[in-house]
Amino acid sequence: MSDAVPDLDRVVKEIAEEMRQRPDRGEVASYIPELARVDSDAFGLVVIDAEGRVAAGGDSETPFSIQSISKAFTLTLALGMVGDRLWRRVGREPSGSPFNSIVQLERERGIPRNPFINAGAIAVTDVILSGHQPREALGEILRFMRFLADDSSIVIDEAVAASEQRTGFRNAALAHYMKSFGVIENPVDFTLGVYFHHCAISMSCRQLAMAGRFLAYSGRNPATGHSVVPPERARRINAVMLTCGHYDGSGEFAYRVGLPGKSGVGGGILAIAPGKASIAVWSPGLDASGNSHLGRIALEALTRRLGWSIFGT
Amino acid sequence: MSDAVPDLDRVVKEIAEEMRQRPDRGEVASYIPELARVDSDAFGLVVIDAEGRVAAGGDSETPFSIQSISKAFTLTLALGMVGDRLWRRVGREPSGSPFNSIVQLERERGIPRNPFINAGAIAVTDVILSGHQPREALGEILRFMRFLADDSSIVIDEAVAASEQRTGFRNAALAHYMKSFGVIENPVDFTLGVYFHHCAISMSCRQLAMAGRFLAYSGRNPATGHSVVPPERARRINAVMLTCGHYDGSGEFAYRVGLPGKSGVGGGILAIAPGKASIAVWSPGLDASGNSHLGRIALEALTRRLGWSIFGT
Amino acid sequence: MSDAVPDLDRVVKEIAEEMRQRPDRGEVASYIPELARVDSDAFGLVVIDAEGRVAAGGDSETPFSIQSISKAFTLTLALGMVGDRLWRRVGREPSGSPFNSIVQLERERGIPRNPFINAGAIAVTDVILSGHQPREALGEILRFMRFLADDSSIVIDEAVAASEQRTGFRNAALAHYMKSFGVIENPVDFTLGVYFHHCAISMSCRQLAMAGRFLAYSGRNPATGHSVVPPERARRINAVMLTCGHYDGSGEFAYRVGLPGKSGVGGGILAIAPGKASIAVWSPGLDASGNSHLGRIALEALTRRLGWSIFGT
Amino acid sequence: MSDAVPDLDRVVKEIAEEMRQRPDRGEVASYIPELARVDSDAFGLVVIDAEGRVAAGGDSETPFSIQSISKAFTLTLALGMVGDRLWRRVGREPSGSPFNSIVQLERERGIPRNPFINAGAIAVTDVILSGHQPREALGEILRFMRFLADDSSIVIDEAVAASEQRTGFRNAALAHYMKSFGVIENPVDFTLGVYFHHCAISMSCRQLAMAGRFLAYSGRNPATGHSVVPPERARRINAVMLTCGHYDGSGEFAYRVGLPGKSGVGGGILAIAPGKASIAVWSPGLDASGNSHLGRIALEALTRRLGWSIFGT
Repeated sequence: MSDAVPDLDRVVKEIAEEMRQRPDRGEVASYIPELARVDSDAFGLVVIDAEGRVAAGGDSETPFSIQSISKAFTLTLALGMVGDRLWRRVGREPSGSPFNSIVQLERERGIPRNPFINAGAIAVTDVILSGHQPREALGEILRFMRFLADDSSIVIDEAVAASEQRTGFRNAALAHYMKSFGVIENPVDFTLGVYFHHCAISMSCRQLAMAGRFLAYSGRNPATGHSVVPPERARRINAVMLTCGHYDGSGEFAYRVGLPGKSGVGGGILAIAPGKASIAVWSPGLDASGNSHLGRIALEALTRRLGWSIFGT
Repeated sequence: MSDAVPDLDRVVKEIAEEMRQRPDRGEVASYIPELARVDSDAFGLVVIDAEGRVAAGGDSETPFSIQSISKAFTLTLALGMVGDRLWRRVGREPSGSPFNSIVQLERERGIPRNPFINAGAIAVTDVILSGHQPREALGEILRFMRFLADDSSIVIDEAVAASEQRTGFRNAALAHYMKSFGVIENPVDFTLGVYFHHCAISMSCRQLAMAGRFLAYSGRNPATGHSVVPPERARRINAVMLTCGHYDGSGEFAYRVGLPGKSGVGGGILAIAPGKASIAVWSPGLDASGNSHLGRIALEALTRRLGWSIFGT
Repeated sequence: MSDAVPDLDRVVKEIAEEMRQRPDRGEVASYIPELARVDSDAFGLVVIDAEGRVAAGGDSETPFSIQSISKAFTLTLALGMVGDRLWRRVGREPSGSPFNSIVQLERERGIPRNPFINAGAIAVTDVILSGHQPREALGEILRFMRFLADDSSIVIDEAVAASEQRTGFRNAALAHYMKSFGVIENPVDFTLGVYFHHCAISMSCRQLAMAGRFLAYSGRNPATGHSVVPPERARRINAVMLTCGHYDGSGEFAYRVGLPGKSGVGGGILAIAPGKASIAVWSPGLDASGNSHLGRIALEALTRRLGWSIFGT
Repeated sequence: MSDAVPDLDRVVKEIAEEMRQRPDRGEVASYIPELARVDSDAFGLVVIDAEGRVAAGGDSETPFSIQSISKAFTLTLALGMVGDRLWRRVGREPSGSPFNSIVQLERERGIPRNPFINAGAIAVTDVILSGHQPREALGEILRFMRFLADDSSIVIDEAVAASEQRTGFRNAALAHYMKSFGVIENPVDFTLGVYFHHCAISMSCRQLAMAGRFLAYSGRNPATGHSVVPPERARRINAVMLTCGHYDGSGEFAYRVGLPGKSGVGGGILAIAPGKASIAVWSPGLDASGNSHLGRIALEALTRRLGWSIFGT
């Protein structure tokens, strides 16, 4: 893999350094011990451009729990399997509620508002499962992640998955609730098992930015030129990430950063500058909406300095 | 004003012709007679590019009631007056609710979720009013619209304003409700009067596209080069339009069209292709979310044919 | 008027004395100065039995603002005017929400859940108004109160009414909201004017207990034997008082006191022991649900000592 | 067992006959086959007075699924086990929502509004379970029912319990949701298992009226004079039945019938006339709120003819 252009590389390293020095780091997620014990000082940033050049700063090679970022990839996988029929089971409107709200499900008869709130991602997981054994579906998801990132070393953190499963009563409530409306078709335990495991995938910023390239480049892997999804689908996934990718902080992220992105409670964010770059950032401390505090600030600095906002220069 | 490039001009006229032939036209708003009697066959489309070239199709010169599209301009005006202090009185997250919901206000102590739902736009209007007489504030708004569109013939349709005021009990409820939390500072009747009047401004697609140019071109009027707002503010207004500009159909608009935009119940939509074009479309029939049915379809065709989506090519 | 039986009289005076000595007094309502300045040490209790005997303790002759207690009487008056047609405009189910919630109205298309939450009482007031001038409707209500209490000295506290009107934006929001659904038929200002004024009626515990006698004695004034309402209607008003009379503390009041009752934010409670007594208590300090703190405790003591609970001995 | 007084007996038989002839029968619950196949023409009514006299009409000996009526007995049992500490885990206010709503749980951090909505009854079941094996807890509940009804032939319908368990995803959602707030302490499957089974108890009107006697007679079995609960507790359970016993039709039941009662989706209602009678009625067709249609009408006729309303004569 070639080196990044000096300028981009310099900006990335500057930002990593600035972030390292900031005292405000947000609150590390503490609902399971595996996340609670992550070092709140960690920070990583990787940008991969259209030529495949990689600019990296900070802890760019440290694996972390991608958590909800996996939802961008399971959405891609499910759309590949059933196409637009997916939208019969999940909407694509922002939710106006916290990530794990069950209120909206009652008002809208079990159809989650979008694939990026927990309920929606569970419904998408159910589509991927579609009658198979959990182990098979999980293998499919993991192979897809390794293929996209060009990296067979990506694994699931079983301790994280086990903790999530042990404490995930709210997600179990969401799944049973959707089941009561027929939105979940597989046994609830199967669907939840797959869901908890794909959220427990561990990746570094480098691996994550690699995996996101197809969203930045019209559905193609720019290194090989191979198509992952049609260009229109890549655009549409980006659109859903922009409107729904940061829970009830999606408007704020669009307003400040101006890029489609998907965050995870592990502190990672995948952001896409269409035509320009695939970006991964990681800082474990979260803001009030559950998104990486410094991750968002770093991305805001990056897009401002490089003029990458999709909303104008 | 010079003519548009042949290619853009051809695409715009093709789309206008295709829309004219479609049988599906949505439902014209009927809550006041002035809107109910608008011809559902009307369709207009105007695109203005960075060089100021105008491509027009259909009823591009017919004035219509811009309704909620005015909210994009009052937001701009209020930000110019009080800057980021505006955000103490209104949020910038998608609402996940219909345009006139009062439920969210109860949950969030009178602070509207964003400036583009009715409650939010009323709060923004209250900021513009800020102690002045309604007549003065309204004059300010109208002068701003005429300045942006370079057209002193733009007027308020008093019959529409009077009908809105006579029937606008839901908006009066929202305003009194916010007043009870101290979010509205002026007398409720003053604020509502200004609100109902700026929603009753009449403009043609050409006038509207002219007025939107500053959002497409980094805050500047490309014809004169004069700055209307700083580039960052233009980007941010575009971001709010993308996440919140189409009520509870904002996710759908981003997914299908891929441009920031603001719709009105009169059937108009202002859409912005950053760096490329300011676009206005008008077709009075609405979809279930209250947005122009053919307007959205026309914009989807336009961005697809020209590759203008902000989410990739 | 004859004296009460010694036993009842003793119990009433004992309770008044016990209440006077308690340090816990709740919080006096402070949203308008006229209520805020009421002495939090005040306490009055009056019980009138079937023979018309009056047992009184504490500040039983001091007038206070009856506030929402008027809703029991306006309900009676409206049922007398339109009978069961009233229930087309207001329900009779407990609300499960605070007294001034607007959320429920959105879910149920402008029909308030019951006549004792603010929205419901405003709708009932609108029925009484029904095309007349506010002054006439208000005169009707006041005459009804004086007739029931056998006391022509009962008046409206104009300072309270004016304060309510000046600050009642939440109630104005409720009224406009119902107007948008056609549930309010008169001009909103007329209906609100009558509403604010009948809530501002001033009465002493003695006057209030007198006015409530018909509810305790099968719809009749036990002193004269004259029928005010049919027995079934008296039972039904008592039923609505039991399930809905104390806002979101109605279950608690039924659980602890075991009598139908209606409370007001001025600290008064009218309670009915069917066949046994009409009871009025007043202590200005409120609990978290907005009901008189010591008033409820006094009634709990009274029903326990006298075995008056409607739920068994 | 002695016969009822002629008059009461005649009224009961008249009402049974009137009900048998009515064409309007409501809708039989159809969510599980065991309930769906119950004869919609069935009707039973039993009244037991203070002297233990039994007046019976219609299908008074036919067992039916008591469903939610069991909640009145599990509440009694749980109060006997933990006393007022029960109220830390469940409220006692009417819900203002359908019986299986999950919205309220989100707003109130997992604490159900009262013990008679599904969530509340599941929480009460969890209290009874409290670390024991499901089989033991269930045995305890069944023994209690047999003791109260003086009838060892009462059993659980295992087919109903199995169907409920197979389809009860909404209840599973409620239980997992409460578990996420720590309101459920036992394994969710244990608690749900006991809940589904006690709802599947089969009883006839006669058995049910027998079991309810202690609520009518100050907590005592009038036949033996033995105390089941203290008088105050019986009153308080009656109070909760009155305000919350018929889901979102509780206000309606109080308004029309005027007695505390608890309904079940199997079409049964237990009603209590304090000091006068324990009453059980059964007719499988339900009204829109999920309460027995003819059951309510029969009880309204009964209380009117006998003057038994707790709200006056």
